[in-house]
Order: sequence, then structure tokens, then C-alpha cells
Amino acid sequence: MERIIDSQLEDLKKLMLEMGGQVEKALQTATEGLQKKDNNLFKEVHQFETHINELQIKIDNACLHVLAKQGPVAKDLRLILSIIKINTDLERMGDQCVNIAHLGRELLERSFTSSMQDIETMSACVSKMVKGCLDSFVKMDVVAAQKILEMDDQVDMLKNKVYKDSTELMKVQPQNIQNLMDLILIARNLERLGDHATNVAEDVIFAFSGKDVRHGAND
Amino acid sequence: MERIIDSQLEDLKKLMLEMGGQVEKALQTATEGLQKKDNNLFKEVHQFETHINELQIKIDNACLHVLAKQGPVAKDLRLILSIIKINTDLERMGDQCVNIAHLGRELLERSFTSSMQDIETMSACVSKMVKGCLDSFVKMDVVAAQKILEMDDQVDMLKNKVYKDSTELMKVQPQNIQNLMDLILIARNLERLGDHATNVAEDVIFAFSGKDVRHGAND
Repeated sequence: MERIIDSQLEDLKKLMLEMGGQVEKALQTATEGLQKKDNNLFKEVHQFETHINELQIKIDNACLHVLAKQGPVAKDLRLILSIIKINTDLERMGDQCVNIAHLGRELLERSFTSSMQDIETMSACVSKMVKGCLDSFVKMDVVAAQKILEMDDQVDMLKNKVYKDSTELMKVQPQNIQNLMDLILIARNLERLGDHATNVAEDVIFAFSGKDVRHGAND
Repeated sequence: MERIIDSQLEDLKKLMLEMGGQVEKALQTATEGLQKKDNNLFKEVHQFETHINELQIKIDNACLHVLAKQGPVAKDLRLILSIIKINTDLERMGDQCVNIAHLGRELLERSFTSSMQDIETMSACVSKMVKGCLDSFVKMDVVAAQKILEMDDQVDMLKNKVYKDSTELMKVQPQNIQNLMDLILIARNLERLGDHATNVAEDVIFAFSGKDVRHGAND
């Protein structure tokens, strides 16, 4: 017999995936904006964020409702707590995409035309992490979530490379200081997106295995 | 008659305030490290963060326990959900303090001796926000929490000032580019601490009034 809570949890998961889809699109659109130097794409990112913010409130309310009406325990409770946390991380991912769009617009205004190869590589890597953590949630796949945690190192390495290369360039291209600064900040926003994807992966591991892997903890 | 849940909620609040106290100390110590150019203070920040991380896991487990055993509803449930979210924000505040300490150590290694007046003003403002949001939680004071939200503008303004002044200086002091970059990043970490304090204030408002004030929402 299907329990009421099962259909409520299914609805919650669907909402969360809708939100995750919006985050993926926001990141993809912001990155494309940087590649194509297209201001309209940066504007679109704001629309995704508005939708993301609405979904955040909707999901929190739905979680509150299930907790109050069903008094879930064990794995149901773990799943809801994980959704509450993932919800927060997804919303902040949306904020980071908006930050990237904002910096991208500044670069456009200053007619910055240099290649952003490392930023594009970083963005591709972060996109994989975002997609991967959402997939691991859908498939309840703890092993896949574990792999996301490992991907974060590459993102950090690329962020450090952008920082190092850009500060070196600043010394010989003082006219480009603000543009190079914006690249560093975009790299930091991408790094934070990766951190949030890592948090989501940790929540997926907790939801479906009961293991708390934060801060190297084992229980 | 006192309910079991009341004493459990009291214990939870105490844990959360212990964690908040550690965050306040971490921020204060990091700022003092910058002022006094003292590496030992930066090392201390890491000890606070370790404690903060332990408390995060302890608080999450305690919330899970209360939810599973007591099946709280209405304002008890709102309070627990708020604590779960505040817990996440406090942990991330600890991360930001560690970032500041890390950047401070870099500045020391490069013997950076310039004044950091704006950073100090920013830090004082953020400290007030951190203390204020925790106080509003203890006193269940929605009006005080509302005031925290307003303080965030000043922090953002100071962050923009540090950004502008530092990029201007970079153009005429290329030998100082990395140091000035670190100042910009410290300002961004302080800004993020302010954002987290804002999130906490929003959670306090939700916990004690039931109003969701995120994203300009009114219900």
C-alpha cells in the first residue's frame, strides 16, 4: 500500500529537480554569455534566478508541511532534512550564477576580448559537478555522489591557476587590471558553485546511506 | 507542566549559542590578527573552526533526534527548521574566518604593512551583525533581527570602496598587486559573513513570527 508520505516525497523530489534544472540552465547561460560576449544571455540568468528563488520558498513550505503532517522518521526524515539543505545550496548556486552574469556584463562594457580558456574549462567542470550531484540524488546513488567530492580538487586547482596567471598579467598590463580582477572573481564564483555541489553530494550521501561525511566525519 | 521537547529545545539553543560564540571569537581573532600582524592569532582561528565544525554535526544530530522522537509541529517545528539553517550559516561563517586568516598570513609573509582602515571598519560592522543576529535569536526579538537586514547595505558599500580603491592603487603600485588583491578578497569574505548573518536574521524572523522575508516574500 502506498503511504501518503510517499507521494508527497515524490512531489518534493520533482520540485527539487525542477530547481536543479534551473540552476544548471543559469550556469550554462552565464557561461555561454562569457563565451559569446552576449549581454542578452546575462539578462536571462536573472530570470532563472527569480524562478529559483520562488522554488526555494515553495520547497521549504512543502517540507514544513510534510514534517508537520506526517511526522516522518528514519530514512524519510533524513531525505526531507537533506532536501531542506540541498534547497539552500541550490538557491545560493543561483546567486553565484547571477554574480558571474554581473561580472560578465562589466567585462562586456569594458570591451574585454581576451580568451577565457581556463574559466571555460572550470565552468565545464563545475557544470559536470552540478549535473552529477543532481543525478546522484535522482538515482539515490551514493557512489556517484562520492565521485563529485573528488572533482572539487580540479576546480580548486583551476581557480588557483586563474588567480596566479591573472595577477602576473596585471603587472605587465596595468590597463587590464579591472578585467583581470573580474576573471579572478568569476573563477571564485565558479569555485563556490563547486563547493555547493559538494555540499549537495554530501547531503545525498547522508540521505541515502545515513553517513555524515562532512569534515571527514564517519558517522 | 514542562514538555520533554521544551528542555530539548533549550539544549539545542544552548548548543547553537555556543557555536555562535565560537564564530564571534573566530572573526574577532582573525581581525585582531590583521591589526596586530600576528601569525599566532591566525593559527587560533583554525582551532575555533574545528570546534565550529564539531558543533555543526552535533546540532544536526540533535535536531534529527528531536524531529524523530517528538514530531514537533507549529512554532516548535519552525524553531527547529530555523536552527538547522542557522547551523549551516554559522559553519560557513567559520569557513570565511579561516579564509581571512589564510589571506592575512599571506599578507604577513609578504610583509605588507599598509593601513587596513576600511577592512577594520567593515569587520567591526560585520561583528555587530553577527552578535546582533545571535542576540535576536536568544531574545526571540523579530524587530532586532529586522535591523540586522538593514546593516548589510553598509557592509556592501565598504566592500565596493575597498574594491575601487585597491584597483586604483594597483595601477600605480604594481609591486603591491598581490597584497591589494588579498585586501579585496578579505573584503569579500567579510561581505559573505554579513550575508550569512543576514540569513540568520531572516531565519530568526521566520522562527518567531512565521514570516518568510526572503527574496522580498511576505508570507
